[in-house]
Amino acid sequence: MTFPDRLKDAAVHVQARLDRAVTGTQPVHDAMRHALSGGKRLRGFLVIEGARLHGVSDAITAAAAIEALHAYSLVHDDLPAMDDDDLRRGQPTVHVKWDDATAILAGDALQTLCFQLLAGDDCHPDAATRVTLIAEMALAAGAQGMVLGQALDIAAESAAVPLDLDAITRLQAGKTGALMRWSGRAGAILGGADPAPLTAYADALGRAFQIADDLLDVEGDAGTTGKAVGKDARAGKATFVSILGADGARARARELVDSACDALSPYGPAADPLRDCARFVIARDR
Amino acid sequence: MTFPDRLKDAAVHVQARLDRAVTGTQPVHDAMRHALSGGKRLRGFLVIEGARLHGVSDAITAAAAIEALHAYSLVHDDLPAMDDDDLRRGQPTVHVKWDDATAILAGDALQTLCFQLLAGDDCHPDAATRVTLIAEMALAAGAQGMVLGQALDIAAESAAVPLDLDAITRLQAGKTGALMRWSGRAGAILGGADPAPLTAYADALGRAFQIADDLLDVEGDAGTTGKAVGKDARAGKATFVSILGADGARARARELVDSACDALSPYGPAADPLRDCARFVIARDR
Repeated sequence: MTFPDRLKDAAVHVQARLDRAVTGTQPVHDAMRHALSGGKRLRGFLVIEGARLHGVSDAITAAAAIEALHAYSLVHDDLPAMDDDDLRRGQPTVHVKWDDATAILAGDALQTLCFQLLAGDDCHPDAATRVTLIAEMALAAGAQGMVLGQALDIAAESAAVPLDLDAITRLQAGKTGALMRWSGRAGAILGGADPAPLTAYADALGRAFQIADDLLDVEGDAGTTGKAVGKDARAGKATFVSILGADGARARARELVDSACDALSPYGPAADPLRDCARFVIARDR
Repeated sequence: MTFPDRLKDAAVHVQARLDRAVTGTQPVHDAMRHALSGGKRLRGFLVIEGARLHGVSDAITAAAAIEALHAYSLVHDDLPAMDDDDLRRGQPTVHVKWDDATAILAGDALQTLCFQLLAGDDCHPDAATRVTLIAEMALAAGAQGMVLGQALDIAAESAAVPLDLDAITRLQAGKTGALMRWSGRAGAILGGADPAPLTAYADALGRAFQIADDLLDVEGDAGTTGKAVGKDARAGKATFVSILGADGARARARELVDSACDALSPYGPAADPLRDCARFVIARDR
């Protein structure tokens, strides 16, 4: 299977699992389904491919869990009180299509859904493994992980001096890096194996992903990316691109992709889909 | 020990556990600590006393977890896009003291903290027990539990006809009942025992609690309750009081307290603190 086919195949399975998880006919349920539709499912793909490397053939529920958590973070991030975005994955954001209250509640319930999925025995038969995934998810998502990154991002907007490279790296390690790392480690944890190689892979991938995101904000097109562009420059935000320049940022992203691929060497050619994924992350146009 | 002393003692231990869980010096961390301070800790008390009945002497971490979840729900519920409240536990609400973005993030991180606490081995040495608590928490808090109740509450505000008694009972079963039920069941689950008696107790208690809340909104005083009063009437909201009348609501609450106490009969006098708690719930002035 080619990489795009593999990615699409994973996305179809993850979507089916998410569809099964969200029932109900209230606006909040519709809003959750809206927030869970579309997207590349990169994080879910990392879980599924990482698990496959350790002989775990069904990691769909864990993959659905990280996508539910990611969806929650986008819904809340898009709120007027936060980034105030109207467009996401080419669709109106939840608070635009419904209202702020529904977006707050839908995001809240999507976070809960993540933990519900991880706690279920279709995630993994062994309770201790599920608890490990849950504990690591809580650390990655909470006030020492993703939420910390978002808080630093908000603080940066009103800071007198723009962030330097170290500060941006720290911010992004929380904001996008922590969930990427979880996605990488999850496959090894599901397989009862040492997560070190996949952790190194995911850390490099997460940083490359963020640089690519910053480049897309400068060079991308809203019609293709499915979200607003040019936001960082308008907000006067320091990014990898504003500090390194577009060429410097591209070079750094390529180095990170090389590191990510190198980290997979213990797995040999079996890890080629993850190598393809790393290359895709910096070549993507959305 | 008298009931007020027992309640205070539980609150002190729960607060210490929560203080230990929230570190960090960003505004979001201060906001989390603010949201976690004060409160009666009724839910935590239920966990601790229920656990004691099953020979579990330390249920502080599980008690702290439900208080973190409860605190998240209050922070988000108080937001301008939701109930728009300025006062909570006699203090300015998080979005008033900080801003909406910080309140959204602090609430998000408090939900995560709940699952982090439940996943830790100081919650219970057995991973399967922790997973049961986590799965039940996710069901109670999510779009089929608390969030559903809040969504129904929002929908009711714009409904053409006020809710009837059945609809309010259903709404409250989600909005406040689901977490109360979890708090009751948790003690039995921690002790590896049948949670049926404590479930029946907590269900009746939760309904009595809500009626008492409705009465406090009509008859209470903002200075004593520490939150705004008269809100339901101003919003034209149907409540147990608007439907049953104040006297009818009081009588119903007393019946529910009797049912709650009856449900504890398998435990004999050892459950007296929980009986005291049920009586306190309808006698309280805040």
